[in-house]
Amino acid sequence: MGLVPPHGAGGLKPLLLEGEALQVERKAAENIIKLDVTSREACDCFMMGIGAFTPLAGFLGQADWERVCTEMKLASGVFWPIPITLSAGDEDNIELGDKVAIHSQEFGGLIAIMEVKEKYQIDKHFECKQVFNTDEMEHPGVAKVMAQKKWNLGGPVKVLSEGGFPQEYGELYARPAETRALFEQLGWSRVAAFQTRNPMHRSHEFLVKIAVEVMDGVLIHQILGKLKAGDIPAEVRVRAINALVENYFVRGTVVSKGYPMEMRYAGPREALLHAVFRQNYGCSHLIVGRDHAGVGDYYGPFDAQKIFYKIPEGSLALKPLPMDWTFYCYKCGGMASLKTCPHGKEDRLNLSGTMVRKTLSEGGELPQEFSRPEVVQILQEYYQSLDDKVEIKLHGHATGAAAKKKKKK
Amino acid sequence: MGLVPPHGAGGLKPLLLEGEALQVERKAAENIIKLDVTSREACDCFMMGIGAFTPLAGFLGQADWERVCTEMKLASGVFWPIPITLSAGDEDNIELGDKVAIHSQEFGGLIAIMEVKEKYQIDKHFECKQVFNTDEMEHPGVAKVMAQKKWNLGGPVKVLSEGGFPQEYGELYARPAETRALFEQLGWSRVAAFQTRNPMHRSHEFLVKIAVEVMDGVLIHQILGKLKAGDIPAEVRVRAINALVENYFVRGTVVSKGYPMEMRYAGPREALLHAVFRQNYGCSHLIVGRDHAGVGDYYGPFDAQKIFYKIPEGSLALKPLPMDWTFYCYKCGGMASLKTCPHGKEDRLNLSGTMVRKTLSEGGELPQEFSRPEVVQILQEYYQSLDDKVEIKLHGHATGAAAKKKKKK
Repeated sequence: MGLVPPHGAGGLKPLLLEGEALQVERKAAENIIKLDVTSREACDCFMMGIGAFTPLAGFLGQADWERVCTEMKLASGVFWPIPITLSAGDEDNIELGDKVAIHSQEFGGLIAIMEVKEKYQIDKHFECKQVFNTDEMEHPGVAKVMAQKKWNLGGPVKVLSEGGFPQEYGELYARPAETRALFEQLGWSRVAAFQTRNPMHRSHEFLVKIAVEVMDGVLIHQILGKLKAGDIPAEVRVRAINALVENYFVRGTVVSKGYPMEMRYAGPREALLHAVFRQNYGCSHLIVGRDHAGVGDYYGPFDAQKIFYKIPEGSLALKPLPMDWTFYCYKCGGMASLKTCPHGKEDRLNLSGTMVRKTLSEGGELPQEFSRPEVVQILQEYYQSLDDKVEIKLHGHATGAAAKKKKKK
Repeated sequence: MGLVPPHGAGGLKPLLLEGEALQVERKAAENIIKLDVTSREACDCFMMGIGAFTPLAGFLGQADWERVCTEMKLASGVFWPIPITLSAGDEDNIELGDKVAIHSQEFGGLIAIMEVKEKYQIDKHFECKQVFNTDEMEHPGVAKVMAQKKWNLGGPVKVLSEGGFPQEYGELYARPAETRALFEQLGWSRVAAFQTRNPMHRSHEFLVKIAVEVMDGVLIHQILGKLKAGDIPAEVRVRAINALVENYFVRGTVVSKGYPMEMRYAGPREALLHAVFRQNYGCSHLIVGRDHAGVGDYYGPFDAQKIFYKIPEGSLALKPLPMDWTFYCYKCGGMASLKTCPHGKEDRLNLSGTMVRKTLSEGGELPQEFSRPEVVQILQEYYQSLDDKVEIKLHGHATGAAAKKKKKK
């Protein structure tokens, strides 16, 4: 058995230029019209660049956009759950047929060149309702669509940069061709992806370990693009996940990698996008837990699982690995889920995110049944450094609680 | 998605007669030649009776026997891993074309009628080496083949009895048509079977719970036929498993049933036979742990898993769910396997079967990390009753250790 094939194509379609072609286009880009794009749009360029968005050849044209919104298909009929689009305003002075140099301040300037084959307007409310199931501006994904400029530009893209991700994340960063080569080397064909944007506590460890038991291996796949305010930064999260993997997983059963996308928080539709590009990364399965890629109360806890059974058969080669709510149960004497623990709430350890943050920022310990001590230590240090920064800002030097905490260490 | 189809046939092929046809054949059986069979042969009649051995129409003829031994296929090409045969001696006076009434003392007399279409001799050493990978008489499955009489009889069977299993085991006993109806009623299509001939401790609970997490449900499937000497009797095992299921599983996630077969301890080939009839019972997967259906040191710990990947694709609709050695790890703080626990032997709870038996028969407690207290209590009572019997035999009345143990209760 080999790896699952890339999505909707014979092979991976990376749009990133390398070597001489890259130099030629970088030079050419100096003399063409320039468009500054958002971090979401830039990240989509990187995903296309490395072939994670195979079979896309660029940003969607109108026919693709419309069919993706309504049917989750490209105009060609290939399954695709979320429009990948680029916008421009009248002030950008872009005309049909133009070659455009796509720039991003955040990602070091020039990132791609695009040939504008289509310029069209969309009903943003329609897109949001289709994709996010809401057009409320409080939804962070909706807010980004609503902030798009007047025109959508469709056309093929040549990607000229990976946005500094390889330099910033080193071995953690991987292109789909690299994970595929790695899985083949490991002899894996049944590979589950575990999506994460947070440090992993025991409930996440448990999900991954169930997959380890029944698969050849698991890809712990961290999002490296921008998150919501208040989320733990990638650098800290990476160290926390490394500590967990090193101390609690068998070497050779999991591979820990990251990818350069930005969350849309589109819940069920985003779970499907996660599935599409995980298939490109060589994964045969995607772990889909409670409220996968959701935010607030916009999606039912299992909507992102159910949608996999509603799409037409054959849409994806990857299959979901749905998992229930997980926790430590004192009566079970171990980790369990609502599917395997028959006991009551009072027997289970249940900490809210708010309580976890409060405990950690006060330098407190989390129960060993909730989180591994090696992970807790890293998170404590992070939260304490936040406090210190706040206090330094307020008082000009570390005093009070932060100073005391430092002594304790 | 529906249930997995029965093996090698459009539908289940139960050979059990019912109603008037049963009465007619029972009557007819009074006047034909009688053959007393072994408990293994009788149990194979029951398995054919209820359709668990679909698509077999009776005991194998010579061409079937030979191809099953060499290729694990019936003469028709349908996958079949172990010869299902009936033997007779010269003293039984059975000729080709005879109708024979198959009797078993252990199972209440008349159990089937067979039309003798073939009468052939086999090389028992050849069969044993093919099926058991050994012809040593110490192997309990080999011993049974070697004890077969001179002739093999092949031909279609009409089954007239279920051997008292339904009466003895009530709701625990189930025919394949019954579990299929039950799974459909529960809305299950991905169903893993867990084979057991022992009470379930936490390591077994863990295997089943992993399957519960990733399947629609699990069939805990106990063998009800004869076991090796020293094994815990079915009645005690059933109570111990019920106690576990009632206290540690979510209602509606597992179904606990039994089947009327006798162990051959053929390791890998028996795992395949377990797969064939589990498919008939409606299971899409079979949990295959360490040394599945093995005995002594005849098979490598994972031979029974590997064989599933060696048989030609399409041999079975059922798939294996291979699982590693499982145990409680104090550093993990829960159940784990060699695939998920990176710690050392010294961190793991490891009790040998001998230690468990010794502890229980001395009325001692097993650690909660090894076995659930509800299960331990049932096993303690059983072992103490054994001791009592032994002591009563020796001394004519209960004294010493056994009497003390009784007081403690």
